[in-house]
Formats: sequence, structure tokens, C-alpha cells
Amino acid sequence: MKKCIENVRRKAPLIHNITNYVTVNDVANVLLACGASPIMSDELDDVEEITSICGGLNINIGTLNKNTIPSMFLAGKVANKLGHKVLLDPVGAGASKLRTDTAVNLMKEVKFDVIRGNISEIKTLAMGSGSTKGVDADVAEAVTEATLNHAVTFVKAFAKKTGCIIAVTGAIDLVTDGNQCYVIRNGRAEMSKITGTGCQLSALMTAFIVANPDNALEAAAAAVCTMGLAGEIGWSNMQPTDGNSTYRNRIIDAIYHMDGETLEKGAKYEVR
Amino acid sequence: MKKCIENVRRKAPLIHNITNYVTVNDVANVLLACGASPIMSDELDDVEEITSICGGLNINIGTLNKNTIPSMFLAGKVANKLGHKVLLDPVGAGASKLRTDTAVNLMKEVKFDVIRGNISEIKTLAMGSGSTKGVDADVAEAVTEATLNHAVTFVKAFAKKTGCIIAVTGAIDLVTDGNQCYVIRNGRAEMSKITGTGCQLSALMTAFIVANPDNALEAAAAAVCTMGLAGEIGWSNMQPTDGNSTYRNRIIDAIYHMDGETLEKGAKYEVR
Amino acid sequence: MKKCIENVRRKAPLIHNITNYVTVNDVANVLLACGASPIMSDELDDVEEITSICGGLNINIGTLNKNTIPSMFLAGKVANKLGHKVLLDPVGAGASKLRTDTAVNLMKEVKFDVIRGNISEIKTLAMGSGSTKGVDADVAEAVTEATLNHAVTFVKAFAKKTGCIIAVTGAIDLVTDGNQCYVIRNGRAEMSKITGTGCQLSALMTAFIVANPDNALEAAAAAVCTMGLAGEIGWSNMQPTDGNSTYRNRIIDAIYHMDGETLEKGAKYEVR
Repeated sequence: MKKCIENVRRKAPLIHNITNYVTVNDVANVLLACGASPIMSDELDDVEEITSICGGLNINIGTLNKNTIPSMFLAGKVANKLGHKVLLDPVGAGASKLRTDTAVNLMKEVKFDVIRGNISEIKTLAMGSGSTKGVDADVAEAVTEATLNHAVTFVKAFAKKTGCIIAVTGAIDLVTDGNQCYVIRNGRAEMSKITGTGCQLSALMTAFIVANPDNALEAAAAAVCTMGLAGEIGWSNMQPTDGNSTYRNRIIDAIYHMDGETLEKGAKYEVR
Repeated sequence: MKKCIENVRRKAPLIHNITNYVTVNDVANVLLACGASPIMSDELDDVEEITSICGGLNINIGTLNKNTIPSMFLAGKVANKLGHKVLLDPVGAGASKLRTDTAVNLMKEVKFDVIRGNISEIKTLAMGSGSTKGVDADVAEAVTEATLNHAVTFVKAFAKKTGCIIAVTGAIDLVTDGNQCYVIRNGRAEMSKITGTGCQLSALMTAFIVANPDNALEAAAAAVCTMGLAGEIGWSNMQPTDGNSTYRNRIIDAIYHMDGETLEKGAKYEVR
Repeated sequence: MKKCIENVRRKAPLIHNITNYVTVNDVANVLLACGASPIMSDELDDVEEITSICGGLNINIGTLNKNTIPSMFLAGKVANKLGHKVLLDPVGAGASKLRTDTAVNLMKEVKFDVIRGNISEIKTLAMGSGSTKGVDADVAEAVTEATLNHAVTFVKAFAKKTGCIIAVTGAIDLVTDGNQCYVIRNGRAEMSKITGTGCQLSALMTAFIVANPDNALEAAAAAVCTMGLAGEIGWSNMQPTDGNSTYRNRIIDAIYHMDGETLEKGAKYEVR
């Protein structure tokens, strides 16, 4: 884990983000916090060149619109051709036909290195079903200690079928390439009271896999641990009157200060 | 008032927002702070399904563009058909023909439960005139103790005519269904130095009326008191070097901690 | 310098921003912090009226898309006709043909009072070349003490050729009308770890030149000093666990508190 974050800071990868306008500012700041650089571009006439000068591509369908969907396909294909790492965050898949279809079709035409979502979104992609309450995972489908074994089996199978690293985040996070599965217990429940921690994690994860190309599974897991640990450290810096808005700042601040040693010591995971 | 906010936290309504890209992140975080959940969607092919899974719809015309105007009409009509609560925030009505016409036409084709704006925007809708300096109310038209009686009469008449709850916010806030008018004196002048406190209030108010369907007038007034009181509490937590950017965080933080008792004690209003 | 910021607070200019969705919230808050007012509008049918009621126009091409490019041209021409101040922030010029061409064509059809960018973007506009790594200046091209003389000569020549005030920001900032060049040494390196300090500066600068129409060169330089000094003051208020997200708030907070005397004392510049 230590090497993974150190490589991000040393290599300072430039990440192309086609992302939603709700959390885009936090996505940019979290990339800067971890030592990477962000660039945002979603215009069809712009994305080919922009993605070419970057190290990786982060596609997030959070506020999907018809103008930017073709840009996602084009940028993804160009990134594939160039051998760049590409990540998909299928925000809200299952909540509407447009979102589900776009995510499913992107998976058909673009080779993703990682797909990161909550359990509801990932189930939607895997089974063409699943219920989504907004962008939060359906509680009934949550990954808990009770449902863990079943969830690990499910996620491994989906990773094998797709050939992608699958990252399912929630109370317990799972990151697998189909063979090994990182089961991660960092983070705090209060993180779900901030908009965009998932979007931030997807951007962070893109930077981590770009900076660790030969070690993508561990890098993806390290990004999850980094985000969760930052949630724990940020929380420990909270004052009694601080709430979710200040917490948002403290998490990004904690990533800004995160070094390899802190991550190594604070990461809570097992490999199954 | 106490029950109104408690119902929001207990029911955790999912709110569909078609809103501007300037303040959208704060809108999402303020909804999470009060115990509701946000979802943003403004694509014509997406809004029907998204609004269907939500409890209420918040339409804000702050950065109007021609791609999303049809989405506002469609989502509004679908929400009406489903009996969902719908709120209009006519940001900048009076500042341009496009904004005024869009707001006026939305009022013709969609039945709004609440319309919330500053006095200048509301006057524009009521009279097809009014002057708007950006998105702030014209000072000459401000609701002050001197102009209060006249303003209450005007707002009540507009509420009766439209059949909507009308909320006019400024130094003194008015919320009326045409019969009763809440005159609210919470808040601080410094809140106008933060972008988007009005947009945040509209989102908050949507959550409040969704969670209190049979008590929408009091719920709308409770949302105004919550926002204003959060402005007072947030200000009391300011350090000497803090300015408008930190104040923004402290207000949302104060909403995160707001409970029924605090609201009940801190709400400053009379009913006329 | 003192008068420049005092005029902004006294005149409270309304600034029309056609800007990117990444940093737009900070742009709005920084304008409010300095005493100006923001309005955002990028729809072709809206911009003519909106720019007419404003004092100045800030065009930023950070997340360029084909819908808003015509709005930039129209708003620019209307602002020119009305004698309003207009600023161009050519974010990412050099990174793609669309961005470079749009910036170059805007310069042909709109008379800009000020163009503000990093050295790589300005070189692109001046020479039709230059390398851009995302939106940061190529380090090899950075303005340092070693390259200062050459850079001053280059920027003065470009200002003379275009008839615009040119502001190049980086470790050392240059602001020139072709005759005089302000060489400014305010700011901190850590500011580059926050997304949007450049965008914020462009908005601030627009407000400064609008409020000081007969003294635009000094006003543009004063805006640079204000932003850099706020970076220094904001940093002095940082706690050990604070990072780039909190720093973002502290900089805007410092602008909120900035008065003429503080600016006069803290501004570090020479005129060449």
C-alpha cells in the first residue's frame, strides 16, 4: 500500500475526468490532494486530444446528458487505443433506463480497468436489475458481515466475467480482480452524509492505478483504504459544532497529508 | 416547527433537483445535512424515471439553458401526475426575457406547491415587471419593517391568485398560503455574501414539504426558520479570520446539527 | 493599490461570468468576498440581456462546449458595444485545437481589456504553439528570476501587439500594458494545490478593472496582489492538519477581510 500512494505523489499523473457537475470541484481537489493533476473535458471535439495528453480516464455518469455520452465513448476508445487506464463510475445505474443502458453499453465498447460503484449499481450492471434509491445502495443489499461471503463470491464472479477490477464500496468495501478480493474496513458511516465521496474515490482510484500500472489491484485497494482512512483521520479532527460541510474539507485535507507510512499503518483489510 | 424537521430526519425524503451548476454541490450537501437525500438529473430522457422514484422536485432556473428547459416541464408534469410536491425557484426572473418567460410558462403548465424567491423575482412573476440586479432583490423593493404591511398584502394576494405557497426571502421573510402569512426574522445579513443560500433554502424547503405533506405551510416556514437560524448559529461559531467561504460551511454544519428543540426555541416568527 | 480594492467595495460591480463548471462556485464566492456580485449565464438566448445589466464580462474556457462557445462570442461583442470591460481566461489553450482555436478566434472578434493565463497558455496565444500539461504551466517555461528579463520582454511585446493588458501568473506574476510591467512576488506555491485559484483571480480581476476603469493596469495588478496576499494570509491561518481544501476556504476568507491598507502594506511588486 505504501508504495502505491508514494508512486502517485512521485509520478503526479494527469487524469482526464468526464464527470458530473455536482461533485466536480471536490473531484479536482482530491486529485490535487493526492499529488495527481485533474483536467475536465466533456465536449466531443475536445476529449480525444485531452485524453491523449493524460495518463488515465475517469468516466462518471452522475449527471448524464446526451451531449456528453458520445464523448464518454470516444474518450474511452481513444484511451484504450493508447493503453491508458480507464475507470467507470456508474452513478445511479438502475435508477433510470438511460443510466443503466449507458453504463452497460460503455462496458461493451470500452475496456475498463476498474468499475467502482455501490452494491446496487454493480448488481444492476451484473444482472440487469437491482433497485437504486437515488445514488445510495439499497440497504437490503448492503455488504455487511452477515452477507459478506455471498457478496465476495458475487463480486469475484462479476470481475472474472468482465475482466475488470470491480470495487464495491459501502460499510465494508470489496476490491477484486476475480482471484483475490480485498475486504476493507476503513471509513466511517458519516461519510455518506457528504455528497461525492464516491466520485472522489473513483478519481483517486484512477490516479492510483495510473501510477501503479503493474499492480492495479493493490493500487485500487490502496485508494479505497486512503479514502476510508482519510475519513477516519478527518473525523478525529472534527470540533463539536462541525458538520458534514466541514467534514468534507477535513477528508480532503487528510488526503493532502497522507503519506505511505500513515496509509500502511492505518489500512484495515484482509485478502480473501 | 419541531415536528416538521423531525419528520424530515425520520422520513429521509429523496429530492430530485433540476438546478444550476453554480451552487449544486451546496444544494446536495444541505439536503444531506437535514436528513434528506439529493439526486440531480436534467436530461430529458432521464428526468421522468428519476422524478418518479423521488418524493419531491425542486426546479431552479439559475443557469438556464435550452437543453434543460424541456426537462423542467416534463419532470414537473410527471411529478404533478404522481402527486409529488414541486417547488419553483425563479432565480433571476426579471433579469432576462428567457428567465421570466420560462418561470411564467412553468407556472402555467406545472402546478407548484411552493414558489420561493426574492421580492424582485416574485414581483416579476406577479406583475410581469420588476427590476432585478443580478439575483439579489432590488434594495428599493426590500421587505423592511416600513414596507412590511404592504408586502404581506401583496404576497397574500399573489398566493391566493396562484394557489401556491409563496415564500419571499430577504431581511424579513414572508411565507403565505394566502390566508396566513408567517413573518420570519431569523438569519443574518452576512448570508447574502455567500452564493447559493437561496438555492439551498429552496432544496431544504422541498424536503420539508415532502416530509410534511398535510402541513405544507408550516413546513415551508420551518425550512425558512431552519436556514435563518443556521445562519445565526453558524455565525456564532465564526473565528475572527473566518470569512464568507468558511461561513458557508458553518451554516450547512449548523443544519447538520439542527434538531427539533433547537429549531423550536430559535425560530423567530409571527403569523399575520 | 489601496484605492483599487476600495473602489470595488464601494461600487460593488455586477460581473457576468461565462465560466467552467469545475470552479464556478468559488468564482461566485470570491466575487462576493471582494464586494462585487456574480451572475452566471451561458445560454445564447440569455447572455445578451444578462451582460447588458452587468458592469463587466469574464470569459473562461475551462470546460468548453459547443453550446456555450457562441454565447461567448455574442456576450463579448455586446459587452464591447456597451463599453464594458471584458477579460479572457484561456484555460487549457494549447492542450487541444478546440481550446486554442476558440481563444484565438475570440481574440479576433472580441476586444479584450485583459487576457490572464499561465505562461504556457499565453505563449500558445502569442505563438500558436507552446506545451500545456493540463491547465498548469509547463515547468520548463516557468517565469523565474533566471528567466524574468526574457519573460518581461515577451509579455510586453504581446501586450503591445494585441492592445490588451496581459497578465501571466505563476511563481512570479507579470501584468503589463506593453509599456509598464508589474512584476509581482505575492502568493505561495501551495496555491497550485487548489483547483481554480486562476479562475478566481480572473473573476476578481474583472471586478477590479470594472471598478477602476481609468486605471486598469494598476487595478489588474492590484487584483493579482490581492489574490497572492490572500494566499499568504490564508496560509498563516492554517492549522497543522489543514490541507488544500481548508486552504481554499481560508484564501477566500482572507479576501473577504482584505482592506485597502492591508493590500497596500502586503503587496510585493516592482514596475519595470
